[in-house]
Amino acid sequence: MRIDIITVVPELLESPFSHSIMKRARDKGLLEVHVHHLRQWAVNEYGQVDDYQYGGGAGMVMMCEPLANAIETLSKDRQYDEVIFMTPDGERFNQSIANQLSLKENLIIICGHYKGIDERIREHFVTREISIGDFVLSGGELAAAIVVDAIGRLLPGVLNDETSALMDSFQDNILAPPVYTRPADFRGWKVPDILLSGDPKKVEDWRYEQSIQRTKIRRPDLLDKH
Amino acid sequence: MRIDIITVVPELLESPFSHSIMKRARDKGLLEVHVHHLRQWAVNEYGQVDDYQYGGGAGMVMMCEPLANAIETLSKDRQYDEVIFMTPDGERFNQSIANQLSLKENLIIICGHYKGIDERIREHFVTREISIGDFVLSGGELAAAIVVDAIGRLLPGVLNDETSALMDSFQDNILAPPVYTRPADFRGWKVPDILLSGDPKKVEDWRYEQSIQRTKIRRPDLLDKH
Repeated sequence: MRIDIITVVPELLESPFSHSIMKRARDKGLLEVHVHHLRQWAVNEYGQVDDYQYGGGAGMVMMCEPLANAIETLSKDRQYDEVIFMTPDGERFNQSIANQLSLKENLIIICGHYKGIDERIREHFVTREISIGDFVLSGGELAAAIVVDAIGRLLPGVLNDETSALMDSFQDNILAPPVYTRPADFRGWKVPDILLSGDPKKVEDWRYEQSIQRTKIRRPDLLDKH
Repeated sequence: MRIDIITVVPELLESPFSHSIMKRARDKGLLEVHVHHLRQWAVNEYGQVDDYQYGGGAGMVMMCEPLANAIETLSKDRQYDEVIFMTPDGERFNQSIANQLSLKENLIIICGHYKGIDERIREHFVTREISIGDFVLSGGELAAAIVVDAIGRLLPGVLNDETSALMDSFQDNILAPPVYTRPADFRGWKVPDILLSGDPKKVEDWRYEQSIQRTKIRRPDLLDKH
């Protein structure tokens, strides 16, 4: 899978894809992430990619031409399944969208910065608008990193043990059960006996029960999806 | 404001706070972000901070002792308002929580990695559990970066023009209006005339109307909060 990220602050994305699981995914050749500086498609020799907004007001707007150039240049070399724009008014990202996108071959992700991108790019080039939640960020870069991370870890072969991803919260619309490790007694706080019982069936039942309980208390809305 | 982040992959967080708006916030002394490697509070000379989970199953669990040590060591030097754990089953992060947290002085954020952290830390040390959405990430690091970014930009003096943050999506529970910049005609796609009218009142009315329309179509649930 290949993901091309278009941004005005590529340096923000230096570390998130260079370590841990994302690094492993890239080293294994399962995921290619290319971070492009929008400035290379600027409209003039000053590297301009943004301008004041029509109608006045604070904040710069990312211009049509550099973004259109970027998308068209990349699209010459391969067909993209989606041109995604990270924006707080997009559809809410969730595990099901992550699953869906992990099956694609080529994605472009546009990161807005400043006040946003010219609406005409959204109308004519963007195929999918995604939000990671109801909050405002400095730019779309970290949101894009989140999406890449969530997708990347679903690619077969990225996680060492594939059951590990299947057991996570949300894959079955229930939350994960509590987990414990040594010592069995820490400052008088003890691990539940059943986890020390050595009886795999009992442990499995307990975990399922805990998952359901936790979901009922914290996220009853998820159970409605069953 | 000071934020201490505890993680087993500090290198993931090298770039997100070193550029753009977060860099400005730190340079101006408005926001201190300290990223701590959990390993310095390891339980043995091998730097061990995780172990197999009780009851069996894939994935390592972050141990009690290093985390307890980390929190207690940091707490000797100052009082923390919250010890936050980033977890998909926490309360959903949103702009109102960002506003709330931006008024605090000292925060600890614990990033889970692997299968999660020992439940006893959640019970006895964590004061607030926050999720950025219904999806699973490699770890809590990028989620923590999101929270820091959303909070940081709200600190007075961080953004150049404070009206800029107030005009963003969600601050009033309505989405931001579309934005446009030059050229007025791009490949035959034109900027709405009203934005070129030079009439501030008309522009303001149009933007408000667009915001309401967009919110009705994309996020009618937000309007119920009015």
